[in-house]
Amino acid sequence: MGKRLAVLGVGAVGRAVLELAESHGHEVVAAADSRSAIIDADGIDPAAVLVRKDGDEPIGTADPESVVQADYDVLVEATPTTLGDAQPGFNHVRAALETDRHVVLANKGPIAERYAEVRELERSSAGAVRFEATVGGAIPILQVIHDYGPQHVTAARGVLNGTANFILTRMADEGLGFEHVLAEAQDLGVAEADPTFDVDGTDAALKCVILANVLTDGDPAFSLADAAVEGIEHVPPSALELATEDGRAVRLIGEATREAVSVAPRLVPVNDALAVSGTQNIVQVTTRDAGLLNLSGRGAGGPETATAVLADVNRLP
Amino acid sequence: MGKRLAVLGVGAVGRAVLELAESHGHEVVAAADSRSAIIDADGIDPAAVLVRKDGDEPIGTADPESVVQADYDVLVEATPTTLGDAQPGFNHVRAALETDRHVVLANKGPIAERYAEVRELERSSAGAVRFEATVGGAIPILQVIHDYGPQHVTAARGVLNGTANFILTRMADEGLGFEHVLAEAQDLGVAEADPTFDVDGTDAALKCVILANVLTDGDPAFSLADAAVEGIEHVPPSALELATEDGRAVRLIGEATREAVSVAPRLVPVNDALAVSGTQNIVQVTTRDAGLLNLSGRGAGGPETATAVLADVNRLP
Repeated sequence: MGKRLAVLGVGAVGRAVLELAESHGHEVVAAADSRSAIIDADGIDPAAVLVRKDGDEPIGTADPESVVQADYDVLVEATPTTLGDAQPGFNHVRAALETDRHVVLANKGPIAERYAEVRELERSSAGAVRFEATVGGAIPILQVIHDYGPQHVTAARGVLNGTANFILTRMADEGLGFEHVLAEAQDLGVAEADPTFDVDGTDAALKCVILANVLTDGDPAFSLADAAVEGIEHVPPSALELATEDGRAVRLIGEATREAVSVAPRLVPVNDALAVSGTQNIVQVTTRDAGLLNLSGRGAGGPETATAVLADVNRLP
Repeated sequence: MGKRLAVLGVGAVGRAVLELAESHGHEVVAAADSRSAIIDADGIDPAAVLVRKDGDEPIGTADPESVVQADYDVLVEATPTTLGDAQPGFNHVRAALETDRHVVLANKGPIAERYAEVRELERSSAGAVRFEATVGGAIPILQVIHDYGPQHVTAARGVLNGTANFILTRMADEGLGFEHVLAEAQDLGVAEADPTFDVDGTDAALKCVILANVLTDGDPAFSLADAAVEGIEHVPPSALELATEDGRAVRLIGEATREAVSVAPRLVPVNDALAVSGTQNIVQVTTRDAGLLNLSGRGAGGPETATAVLADVNRLP
């Protein structure tokens, strides 16, 4: 059943949602970036919005904050992730749910930092909240946990930040230092101008916090403050060399259980499922009755993450 | 919402469904093996059934064929896979759907050999048909394709028979011949007394036929006769040795697209996702917008396959 989407945020993910919505049978009725918005209950022209965006023009004439009150079925929250109070994302989620509309998030903030409140708002709403895109890009890990039943899953762990994994892979392969490879990753567009959250473990930790919240169903709810986080900034090339000689690799492994969340560089055997290379992500689920399940794929990227957003939209009632 | 299950077949999978149903919130109201059946609308005692089964006693006093007409919500079809007319499995599916009940299959026969007829019966029924357990054991590949939308998936390929993969892995690791390793696998319980369908590619082909049917939504419908199938019986140890020297491995790879189904031994790089070891299975999905997704895990086993059956039951309306 086609849905009418309002898309907040026209970065890599929001842009790809605009491009792919129609091929999934949905219509875009509003879009906003941080400067302006376009709203049309009869459907906007996504291609024209992207042309204006590329030309650095305002995408429309409406106030961005007016979009949440527009006429739509599903709010797609793809604004940048913010920590702490997770604003303005949290207010967007609240506005949609309070008016009985669905919300699909690519923004990790509200789900990682204010999970209990989001679920509370959902319980009082005719709308639903979904957030597959917040963990592992195109990897449908949350749906898989949902399908197994969270109570039948004991842990989820994996490589959840492609930038950090690219850096560790290159450092080991080429014997180069962290700063050198980071600069290279920025040149290639694999690392952002400000790569802090990718290399210090924060981004992976947010994803693991979300996994933990899914495992506990929010009881208790985790936030970033509950996670033990260590990044890759201080991994010396010599440690990677020793690991290689020993048939192992260093990977930034995040782990979520019902009790704890942690992210840290760990040694894994080179032929282990967790030793993915480059920007690849992997999530490994420990099930009660069915052993380990590994899911690997592209953990980031516009079309990949938009595919997860649209899969969530497709699953809405 | 708890469902009332009738379980046909008390082999490894049916047995595990009996053991695990309650932990998923469901009740078993009937069970049958090939000799007898037990039916009780107030719920049977699965543990008592398994004790009788282990003691080689009849599990009940009813006629096995009477179960399909009993009072239940979901028929779990876990009798052995048969080819061609896929009987008696097909008749069980028909009886449940004609009386507006759901069917969840672990039996590949009806879905691989008579897909169009099964879907036709489903369209005229208030019941639904699900069959996650027929492909890849605990790997939720069909649900993942469903969630992406089959039209957004261009191909699925992988290692779908753990027995054949165990044999190829051991042959390469130990430099041993096919017959020797097969006998070893039988001793270990990895291969069945009659391993024909595992080593000649039939079992993997049935799974790929099912994948193709999901990709096309049955238009056109594939059956085993449409698959190009080659097994591992004639792979010489020398070929595996040459592959190893070249950094590659021989794997029995099945592939399904909307146009064709094939199974054959193929060379894959040793560090490729497809080069899983031992009895592990992997399915690799090519998506239109989100790259390759790999899912690996246990492709067989009672509790693993029963977990897929019960996930299907959990998804029923």
